[in-house]
Amino acid sequence: MKTLRVELGPRSYPIHIGPGLLGRADLVVPHLAGRQVLVVTNEVVAPLYLERVLAAFEGLETATVVLPDGEAHKNLESLTQVFDALLEHRHARDTTVVALGGGVVGDLAGFAAATYQRGVAFVQLPTTLLAQVDSSVGGKTGVNHPRGKNMIGAFHQPSCVLADTDTLATLDDRQLRAGVAEVIKYGLIRDLDFFLWLEDHLEGVLRRDADALATAIERSCRNKAQVVASDERETGVRALLNLGHTFGHAIETGVGYGEWLHGEAVAAGMCLAADLSARRGWLAPTDRERVRALVARAGLPTHPPASLGVDRFLDLMAVDKKVRGGRLRLVLLRDIGEAVLTDEFDPGLLRATLEAG
Amino acid sequence: MKTLRVELGPRSYPIHIGPGLLGRADLVVPHLAGRQVLVVTNEVVAPLYLERVLAAFEGLETATVVLPDGEAHKNLESLTQVFDALLEHRHARDTTVVALGGGVVGDLAGFAAATYQRGVAFVQLPTTLLAQVDSSVGGKTGVNHPRGKNMIGAFHQPSCVLADTDTLATLDDRQLRAGVAEVIKYGLIRDLDFFLWLEDHLEGVLRRDADALATAIERSCRNKAQVVASDERETGVRALLNLGHTFGHAIETGVGYGEWLHGEAVAAGMCLAADLSARRGWLAPTDRERVRALVARAGLPTHPPASLGVDRFLDLMAVDKKVRGGRLRLVLLRDIGEAVLTDEFDPGLLRATLEAG
Repeated sequence: MKTLRVELGPRSYPIHIGPGLLGRADLVVPHLAGRQVLVVTNEVVAPLYLERVLAAFEGLETATVVLPDGEAHKNLESLTQVFDALLEHRHARDTTVVALGGGVVGDLAGFAAATYQRGVAFVQLPTTLLAQVDSSVGGKTGVNHPRGKNMIGAFHQPSCVLADTDTLATLDDRQLRAGVAEVIKYGLIRDLDFFLWLEDHLEGVLRRDADALATAIERSCRNKAQVVASDERETGVRALLNLGHTFGHAIETGVGYGEWLHGEAVAAGMCLAADLSARRGWLAPTDRERVRALVARAGLPTHPPASLGVDRFLDLMAVDKKVRGGRLRLVLLRDIGEAVLTDEFDPGLLRATLEAG
Repeated sequence: MKTLRVELGPRSYPIHIGPGLLGRADLVVPHLAGRQVLVVTNEVVAPLYLERVLAAFEGLETATVVLPDGEAHKNLESLTQVFDALLEHRHARDTTVVALGGGVVGDLAGFAAATYQRGVAFVQLPTTLLAQVDSSVGGKTGVNHPRGKNMIGAFHQPSCVLADTDTLATLDDRQLRAGVAEVIKYGLIRDLDFFLWLEDHLEGVLRRDADALATAIERSCRNKAQVVASDERETGVRALLNLGHTFGHAIETGVGYGEWLHGEAVAAGMCLAADLSARRGWLAPTDRERVRALVARAGLPTHPPASLGVDRFLDLMAVDKKVRGGRLRLVLLRDIGEAVLTDEFDPGLLRATLEAG
């Protein structure tokens, strides 16, 4: 087991990464606020891991909410189900909400924890690669609105994250590849050495080689933890973690939540960001091709869905959370391993990138 | 105009109190985050004051949401209307949500501001006595759940509060009296002199004498601002502001949101707290009668609705946010002007208080 820490003063917390962690009461129970626990999970994860997790909470007062699977359910209706369960079981402000699942479960359960009785404790038990390397760390929580991804939410840090790498054995291939998109992201935005490592070891990650996966997860979490520690509320550098996300969120909203997995949309979005960065004169065209090549080797899309159309794409991007004073800002690449948040790009170049698809 | 400040470091903000403030662009525009403004109000307040408020935002990009009036609409459905409007008008993270109305509008609009794009700026324009003396100050925001008042919410401070005392002229008598309940509360929990002043000047407040109202509002806000500054997140002393509220919330939920006004339920709740404090041996029986007498002179209920029943009452109180480790905690009075949060009371005494009604 490896342990990292997200350093946020009184809100600091550990990320434990390794096999066999889900049953470890010793790792999770000390982070509960009281004797009540609500486990939020989904219908895919529950049959696999719920029993093991509840065993770790033996002797405590536990309740469970099992949501339908998928991004289409990350909305206010599912959130209401969590509040209903908390109140039905009379959970008090010293309850702890435990998210057992992927990014959808984590984001939604975290937002419920952020807002139930104005905020209760929260623990993340991520079971997908994407959640283990990205969404479970950093305290971004929320749900989707029909007009925009993650438009309703809060910052609310977990009190611990247990990334049990055994759970990746049951993850389907498409979900694994979607997680790899966020792994590649860390290399692109701030860790050239990690990008080079991925160029050498991607196939090991994809065939779930234990060492390769462990390295990918740990290095991703280390990058995430550093960025979050220096900018918890995204007033600056944290925005760089959104490389590909403005494009990606537009794709997810445009084609319908759940049609493309978040990681797939981010993969295509990173390729679009690389293309615009190249058109902008920042990224060498050969490096744009290296980005596309790595994304393609991961079995991820390098282009957006043709069905979306450029005007609709631009329209969807206009609600992005990084818009300021009416101007769209994007994370672009000055180089592989060096991202910047900028509104300094010709709208004509953005259109050209989208038209090239 | 009087100006107080809530001292919360980088989240400090002014409370301006006086006549003619709603049209004052100079007081509000400097507190906006950008050029977009969403005004949230209700169907009673809009015809009276919306035009004046929008005039103060002339030249900016404004949109409006007009909700139905009343506590029954402080729920996730109304919240959804606010999110829909924000997204329909493409409001970005630098928008400002402006609450124009009473406690329901302020709590709901504030929660929308707390959670839209993980938090945007927020301005309070309270138009009821209750909102001016209590709910607009301090950053508690949220909505009700069918099983419990204010069960879903967040702490989110406004960037300024403009309490335009002219708006009290159009307030109906029942609403004015409901606000007086929270005014009396400040005297009871921490300001004996203010309680004595109210015993002398209550009728002036009730007939809307300008000086009496100004004193009542300013002194209430001063008390609130001091408590909030010393305990923003209610880890200690701030809980004392909930005198009468555990009883009151149970009444509001039990009889149906909106049947009793919040202030009415709090008034009866404070009398119940005084009664339990007397049974506990803390408050002199003569002081319990002084509390009841002042509440009665304000035209407020001194007893809960008989229809509620003791078992149901206890059941509703059990979901209170102050429950810890399964134990109910209540704000009780050691004396007039001295409140304590405690779980040190015999449940039999609580039952006796509720049975006496």
